Amino acid sequence: MGSDAIVGYGTYLELIQDLTIDKEVVSTGMTQEIDRCRKAIDLAAKGKTVAVISGGDPGIYAMAGLVLELLRTWNPGSGIQNPEVEVIPGISALNACASRLGAPLMHDFASISLSDRLTQWETIEKRLDAAAMADFVVALYNPKSKGRAEQIKRARQIILRYRTPETPVGIVKAAMRDNESVIVTDLEHMLEHDIDMQTTVIIGNSKTLTWNKLMITPRGYEKKRQFRNNE
Amino acid sequence: MGSDAIVGYGTYLELIQDLTIDKEVVSTGMTQEIDRCRKAIDLAAKGKTVAVISGGDPGIYAMAGLVLELLRTWNPGSGIQNPEVEVIPGISALNACASRLGAPLMHDFASISLSDRLTQWETIEKRLDAAAMADFVVALYNPKSKGRAEQIKRARQIILRYRTPETPVGIVKAAMRDNESVIVTDLEHMLEHDIDMQTTVIIGNSKTLTWNKLMITPRGYEKKRQFRNNE
Repeated sequence: MGSDAIVGYGTYLELIQDLTIDKEVVSTGMTQEIDRCRKAIDLAAKGKTVAVISGGDPGIYAMAGLVLELLRTWNPGSGIQNPEVEVIPGISALNACASRLGAPLMHDFASISLSDRLTQWETIEKRLDAAAMADFVVALYNPKSKGRAEQIKRARQIILRYRTPETPVGIVKAAMRDNESVIVTDLEHMLEHDIDMQTTVIIGNSKTLTWNKLMITPRGYEKKRQFRNNE
Repeated sequence: MGSDAIVGYGTYLELIQDLTIDKEVVSTGMTQEIDRCRKAIDLAAKGKTVAVISGGDPGIYAMAGLVLELLRTWNPGSGIQNPEVEVIPGISALNACASRLGAPLMHDFASISLSDRLTQWETIEKRLDAAAMADFVVALYNPKSKGRAEQIKRARQIILRYRTPETPVGIVKAAMRDNESVIVTDLEHMLEHDIDMQTTVIIGNSKTLTWNKLMITPRGYEKKRQFRNNE
């Protein structure tokens, strides 16, 4: 609201167009993250207050890091001050999708992006294996795109090394947007459902159960109540 | 705002007291989570719209799961309908603390609670080891309390099996509240700082760096830019 300029990916700018009237708006395409942040830094160097907007939480797999990475190596020229940066947290896909699925993140969880555009696939596999082995609930960001269909199949296979086919799986597309869809299924059947770039997948731990089409990962209060009854 | 009754822990109710005027308010102590949810369910069964409030995101280590767990085994009696539940996501400590620290969660991360009140310590150790081994950024919830001081020391030792003493560590207390404090330190020195129940600790991965008293976990764009320059 207090910004002079708003910089973002077109789709996200459309979602907030009521807020950008009378502002300088800089819109770039989806894979042009670096250009976008450079433009924001240039505007800020001219003394403007600039908001770089991001889907979800800018601090989780999003734009906050790139802005800081670019500023770190930025050479502003003499007399120009390094702009101050404030990161404003938001509702990441993790938070939004969990809320739509019930309560899958009541216990320790790991967040893993299946995109190997900037990360080696071997690293991603190692993380999938470690997270499954140590019984983390697993949230999968970027599970699948048009050119990238194998990763989600491979992720499922790795998790099945440690968990039963009946393990609950939540598939949430476009959480909290108009075209939202929420599916609760299991490891055996998850690939029968539509998964795309707008989807986040949450895979339960060994104790996650389903009830009333919701996922619940118990925290362990059941045990506590038993203790109490035994007192 | 549309609720008839608000149920919560006293400290959180105080934070929103402007919103609870003219509402029925049910306040309980910190460890009385089960009583709190039972009261909320009883009120809802009488036809009231009830808001159970939670610090952070109710879906991350918080009240959403317990409400659903209790409803699952609840016997409402004849003629009483199971209340509908909507979980409204929020800013968890993970989101808030990351924003204060810069951008530590730009890559895969694991969230681990060090409280062994409801979880066996062996399970927690296994998760710490797996997360450190697979180079996840690690967020530690409930790192320490008055009666529980050893867990954070042990967690640090486990992570040091895989990471250097120079690995950046963020310690955030009371994020986004009046008494907020933000410290960026490293694995070697982290225990010299004040850590308590209101603190969340974020430990970087092998690539996390510090700049300008901020933590940045690179996503890998640096590599992408090199690719581009080589084209």
